[in-house]
Amino acid sequence: MNGNEFGRLFRLTTFGESHGDAMGCTVSGVPAGVELSEEAIQEDLDRRKPGQSMITTSRGEPDKVSIKSGLQDGYTTGTPIGMVIQNKDARSGKYEPFITAPRPSHGDYTYSAKFGTRNWGGGGRSSARETVNWVAAGGVAKQVLAQSDYDVQIKAHVCQIGDVVADDVTWEEMLEHSEDNEVRCGDPDAAEEMRDLADEYQKEGDSIGGAIYFECRGVPRGLGAPRFDSIPARLGQAMYSIPAVTDFELGIGRDARTATGTDYTEDWEFGESEATASENASGDEPRARGDPKPVGNDHGGIQGGITTGDPIYGEVTWHAPVSFPKTQETVDWETGERKEITVTGRHDPVLPPRAVPVVEAMLYCTVLDFMLLGGRINPDRLDDRPGEYDTDYHPSSPRNDPEDADTHATTVDED
Amino acid sequence: MNGNEFGRLFRLTTFGESHGDAMGCTVSGVPAGVELSEEAIQEDLDRRKPGQSMITTSRGEPDKVSIKSGLQDGYTTGTPIGMVIQNKDARSGKYEPFITAPRPSHGDYTYSAKFGTRNWGGGGRSSARETVNWVAAGGVAKQVLAQSDYDVQIKAHVCQIGDVVADDVTWEEMLEHSEDNEVRCGDPDAAEEMRDLADEYQKEGDSIGGAIYFECRGVPRGLGAPRFDSIPARLGQAMYSIPAVTDFELGIGRDARTATGTDYTEDWEFGESEATASENASGDEPRARGDPKPVGNDHGGIQGGITTGDPIYGEVTWHAPVSFPKTQETVDWETGERKEITVTGRHDPVLPPRAVPVVEAMLYCTVLDFMLLGGRINPDRLDDRPGEYDTDYHPSSPRNDPEDADTHATTVDED
Amino acid sequence: MNGNEFGRLFRLTTFGESHGDAMGCTVSGVPAGVELSEEAIQEDLDRRKPGQSMITTSRGEPDKVSIKSGLQDGYTTGTPIGMVIQNKDARSGKYEPFITAPRPSHGDYTYSAKFGTRNWGGGGRSSARETVNWVAAGGVAKQVLAQSDYDVQIKAHVCQIGDVVADDVTWEEMLEHSEDNEVRCGDPDAAEEMRDLADEYQKEGDSIGGAIYFECRGVPRGLGAPRFDSIPARLGQAMYSIPAVTDFELGIGRDARTATGTDYTEDWEFGESEATASENASGDEPRARGDPKPVGNDHGGIQGGITTGDPIYGEVTWHAPVSFPKTQETVDWETGERKEITVTGRHDPVLPPRAVPVVEAMLYCTVLDFMLLGGRINPDRLDDRPGEYDTDYHPSSPRNDPEDADTHATTVDED
Amino acid sequence: MNGNEFGRLFRLTTFGESHGDAMGCTVSGVPAGVELSEEAIQEDLDRRKPGQSMITTSRGEPDKVSIKSGLQDGYTTGTPIGMVIQNKDARSGKYEPFITAPRPSHGDYTYSAKFGTRNWGGGGRSSARETVNWVAAGGVAKQVLAQSDYDVQIKAHVCQIGDVVADDVTWEEMLEHSEDNEVRCGDPDAAEEMRDLADEYQKEGDSIGGAIYFECRGVPRGLGAPRFDSIPARLGQAMYSIPAVTDFELGIGRDARTATGTDYTEDWEFGESEATASENASGDEPRARGDPKPVGNDHGGIQGGITTGDPIYGEVTWHAPVSFPKTQETVDWETGERKEITVTGRHDPVLPPRAVPVVEAMLYCTVLDFMLLGGRINPDRLDDRPGEYDTDYHPSSPRNDPEDADTHATTVDED
Repeated sequence: MNGNEFGRLFRLTTFGESHGDAMGCTVSGVPAGVELSEEAIQEDLDRRKPGQSMITTSRGEPDKVSIKSGLQDGYTTGTPIGMVIQNKDARSGKYEPFITAPRPSHGDYTYSAKFGTRNWGGGGRSSARETVNWVAAGGVAKQVLAQSDYDVQIKAHVCQIGDVVADDVTWEEMLEHSEDNEVRCGDPDAAEEMRDLADEYQKEGDSIGGAIYFECRGVPRGLGAPRFDSIPARLGQAMYSIPAVTDFELGIGRDARTATGTDYTEDWEFGESEATASENASGDEPRARGDPKPVGNDHGGIQGGITTGDPIYGEVTWHAPVSFPKTQETVDWETGERKEITVTGRHDPVLPPRAVPVVEAMLYCTVLDFMLLGGRINPDRLDDRPGEYDTDYHPSSPRNDPEDADTHATTVDED
Repeated sequence: MNGNEFGRLFRLTTFGESHGDAMGCTVSGVPAGVELSEEAIQEDLDRRKPGQSMITTSRGEPDKVSIKSGLQDGYTTGTPIGMVIQNKDARSGKYEPFITAPRPSHGDYTYSAKFGTRNWGGGGRSSARETVNWVAAGGVAKQVLAQSDYDVQIKAHVCQIGDVVADDVTWEEMLEHSEDNEVRCGDPDAAEEMRDLADEYQKEGDSIGGAIYFECRGVPRGLGAPRFDSIPARLGQAMYSIPAVTDFELGIGRDARTATGTDYTEDWEFGESEATASENASGDEPRARGDPKPVGNDHGGIQGGITTGDPIYGEVTWHAPVSFPKTQETVDWETGERKEITVTGRHDPVLPPRAVPVVEAMLYCTVLDFMLLGGRINPDRLDDRPGEYDTDYHPSSPRNDPEDADTHATTVDED
Repeated sequence: MNGNEFGRLFRLTTFGESHGDAMGCTVSGVPAGVELSEEAIQEDLDRRKPGQSMITTSRGEPDKVSIKSGLQDGYTTGTPIGMVIQNKDARSGKYEPFITAPRPSHGDYTYSAKFGTRNWGGGGRSSARETVNWVAAGGVAKQVLAQSDYDVQIKAHVCQIGDVVADDVTWEEMLEHSEDNEVRCGDPDAAEEMRDLADEYQKEGDSIGGAIYFECRGVPRGLGAPRFDSIPARLGQAMYSIPAVTDFELGIGRDARTATGTDYTEDWEFGESEATASENASGDEPRARGDPKPVGNDHGGIQGGITTGDPIYGEVTWHAPVSFPKTQETVDWETGERKEITVTGRHDPVLPPRAVPVVEAMLYCTVLDFMLLGGRINPDRLDDRPGEYDTDYHPSSPRNDPEDADTHATTVDED
Repeated sequence: MNGNEFGRLFRLTTFGESHGDAMGCTVSGVPAGVELSEEAIQEDLDRRKPGQSMITTSRGEPDKVSIKSGLQDGYTTGTPIGMVIQNKDARSGKYEPFITAPRPSHGDYTYSAKFGTRNWGGGGRSSARETVNWVAAGGVAKQVLAQSDYDVQIKAHVCQIGDVVADDVTWEEMLEHSEDNEVRCGDPDAAEEMRDLADEYQKEGDSIGGAIYFECRGVPRGLGAPRFDSIPARLGQAMYSIPAVTDFELGIGRDARTATGTDYTEDWEFGESEATASENASGDEPRARGDPKPVGNDHGGIQGGITTGDPIYGEVTWHAPVSFPKTQETVDWETGERKEITVTGRHDPVLPPRAVPVVEAMLYCTVLDFMLLGGRINPDRLDDRPGEYDTDYHPSSPRNDPEDADTHATTVDED
């Protein structure tokens, strides 16, 4: 309702502004028994953090995550994971002259129109900085999925910057190349061109739009729900939550406008998708002849809003960053004056390179949420199959060693 | 969670399958005191209903809505509006030979994979027939908005079928022309071409994709919420709930990929948008010099996820209908056989013409939900401004005529 | 938010007013494959319906439920169950002289204060008539639970009317006797006294308060969630949703005020509760030595907000019905006059006898909701254990008979 | 769903365990423009904190709250309030010998049965320590209400410990005396007896139950919603979320069992309640003759689930603390042994004295939530009446001083 929460069974609740004291994220719905590594979360945060390359803002934020709750001896206990990320390089003082004169195309005016105030220290809560919380939550979801019985894999890469369009890449190429270059593109040649283009716009004091392609593999078939909670509906919310997104395509996307029914529809054959392999890995017996599988994947892994087991893929478009050091015109609603405004400082010339981990995070969160809703992962404890419950501890917990039981006293400090 | 509910303060909950007994929709969050007309709802249902033209399925459904609750003397009472629409031309028997052999690209397989069963009488709950409920709910939202202090107007039209692309049309052209032709296109020349193209595909026993352009005017500035409940996020869910959608663009959409920051950003000037006019109509005093207003509307009425007061616009893409009478291949997961399947019967050759009222309905519902969440409409009673409460009846209610009060007995039949 | 919805994964959404056209309830979250009987639901509705005995209102409502969706050949399909119950004996005309003069202690004034209007045909949506929808939903939940792998049993009876207090009864006595007498009390002697007392108040034109005791058996241990979604928290909402409730006690309830810690706490021993028996029935292997089990059940089946496997029990109190044919005083807020008012008509002299099926319904709904949230029942399909998914139909579905497959054509009538 | 969230428009999301690193609470739905004081929150935290008197546990927690987000120059901005409270005196090591042998009547067994693990450092998330988050959130709600146009006042006191029952106290007596004594009782004589009783049980190594009476004044009439979101339903959830609660009575509560209809119902007269005074303070014009007001308040401020404007009152019962240093019996589910267990350490002998601020906090949160849902407080900005929106800053914000506008450059450091 208030914009701070995402998900149903797997839920994140976030706080924090760009130039506030700290960012924070509470993650609910993590089953007990997951070995949760702060370091693994940090790796994704590092992929998003500012200052990682010449084509990102030089704001110096280590984005160091600290887990405050929900863990015991490195394993989740089923209680919420509280995470805090301290802001280290906030500089809010610089903005004050323009409190009542909004920067063009930022959220300055709209936040003021809604709240009667806003954080004048930068974008406040509208800043993309806030996605640091999402990446932290995604890092939790990723680890839950990795330790589940399913082999879900998610990856994104930058497929377009300005007029530089990457070639279609295979899943393997995306995995191999996309983290090797500063623009996070799976096509090395295009990556180089993109990098040059971004440099050029940065030098000119301008910025440029772009797009990301993503793929989710191993998501089991039969996941999702009819109508308003279909996979597309919830991905639609997830992708359009990301700041500066102006387009979200699923499967063949916009090209569907000109495709005929005979082109678009796909016959059924017997086969094995990554997802059925993933399910088989989870202990289900494979069938000799395989399972029904569509010939082709123009449908993007979804039919009737529910998964077929084929890869879910799509593309997301970002408009150009609206912060760049050109002089622009604004008005002051307090004084009635027209004013010139020049937004100097530290900016990204293009958004998708740093948005790759954000897209992946929202996909991890959304897929895990559907896995829990669809009963594929035990909501209370990861190491049991859903429906199997006993009071034994999971293997990772220290056991009560009878040798130690020389005392019958337990000390408890109630709060 | 289960896909049957949409919205937060203005909520719809639906039931019904394509070939079941009845469709139904419960609408919560309608303020008291709205004069609600079944006929007005019916008008929108008639724009969506099958058999309205040669390029729609010939299934014979009157789609007659019946309001079961929430009204007194034609005015809402604040309690939920229950609506039922009887199915009249369901023919489920025909499908049975293919219970375990899914139709290509329908939801047959995925529903079976999820539920272990499905309605074999057509698409069941995955059928676009279910959007009849949404249009009924949208018809309620439209009437609430029309009687509010704001002048919100929403319209959509078909902007592309196959390779026929309509010219950009003005708001007035869209209003004037789009309901005049069977494809619901605001560009009469393109409409004719689109109609011919649809005919052609229908004759060939094939189908074709297309797209809708929409616009929301008069939505007040400052509406929406940060992050996961931004206007884009909730529109993303709304538009991607619609069956067969493969792309949703907001504002300049996909074109943002190649736009620079200087191109995309818009200076601020003083002016008056439809929305501020709408707000002024609601009793707020206009300012002599106007309000801050962006020069241009590449931003599509939204900055930082919150409205600027400029029109919200975008485009939605549908893939071609997957029902057409060509022979296709499928497999029977029970017998292991490969089979040929021919889906005869009554189909649409293209989806957008009948999806226009569906898009409008989802926009009405979403905008009203945000108006309630943003405190622009009194959630309990329409005829008071928010925050003004007394126990007087609204003018539309019959008053207690003292002349009639010749008795002090009231009879109550408790259930 | 608007008061029409209850539950999380198992959800009901209701519409309807006491003297409106129809009552209705949409139930979401019913797994596919449940054999759902309208007759079984009707049995519970008949226990709640008016006119069933001399100590209930004589309003003539058959309360005949009609299922509109979600079923195929008698089995659920996983899609929402839409139910409609037509009102047959609504008589709203009689109330009009008192539109602006509220009946004492009804919802007349408060509904008017909120909505600026109200249904002057009786209680409108505040009427206990609306619980007909809850009993219908509870009838669905009961059948889902009965066909699950667990042996959950729920029963309630009237334990007090006025100063007549029933003896403590065993589970078996409650089952045996409580539906044998018109007051629904498991203690036959007290039942007779209660009946006489109710008669007496009815003759005097007065009414009286009372209470219900309930018990839930076989609820598996480990169900519930910490804090705001604990079993007590959600039961608190459920029981206090019922009109005219003024007290809800769990376990030893109010008596806990004077119990010491040593009295209240219960040692652990090895044993078997109904719940572990229920779990063992569900396929889990019993342990030779039993499971930990508290010595006694002052805790009411709940510790730390989560179930121990022992019976959950408690008591709910109702104030006296506020409709009775004595002359009372009111004021007319339109005319400023003081007025005498006599509420003649058809009333219950005491509420608990007809509230027994309502309490049971809310318990069935709440327990099932927790069973789904806790992963004990597969949310998509009842006949598989959670986590086991394939595309085979459940045994109750008609199979594709190869003999019939003499045609490869399937006819589909798209809406 | 997962137990970490409470409320609808005003929402809290909490994390933290008794012996973890930190407790935390994110509060959503706070309007912008509220002057929020950390010190004021701290005052309530200090009333709840351990070690405040001889009859509370001696665990040494300063419970110092730190606000991490949502504030600018001391005023809220409409974005979420993130709060963290560091744990300082956690001592988890002491419990380990009893990992697989549950303490009697704690959540040890049930948490293990649910999650397959638990925090063996005390109660973990089931500990009453977690209510520190609730009191912090309540402290935010209290300040929002205090700065609203309404004069809502909430107070609770301990009305019973063991068999010591306080006399009925007036609102003024409760305000004057209840914070003057360590048991927080508004009847000074009873307070002394209660204190002695608590001492006695503490000396014996035992504990005792008790109860709290609460009152909410100035809540405007017409607040609440029908059915599942009635005031009683949401208070039922709120009060039963509090650990160790076994009874919740509203209005005359359990006594309603023996009250007749004529006793219970209350005629209407013209008058002025605190709530109408509160509304009048909010700018509504008083009526010459007053408003309809019930003669008496047996109804506890609620009719038909919605407020009348009279005080809402009720009582809540706690069972005795289950931690005390007597030897008890338990079983080890790992070894199959029976064991003796003695829970030494620091405990409260009775819960209500420290639960007073917890009850008040949950009431503040619930009432504010209903005020927002009922449109009584502008959800976006406190200093405007609902429905009045402009882009001016609220008076508390620093304005753009034209003298300072000697530069047209604003520096922004995007993250």
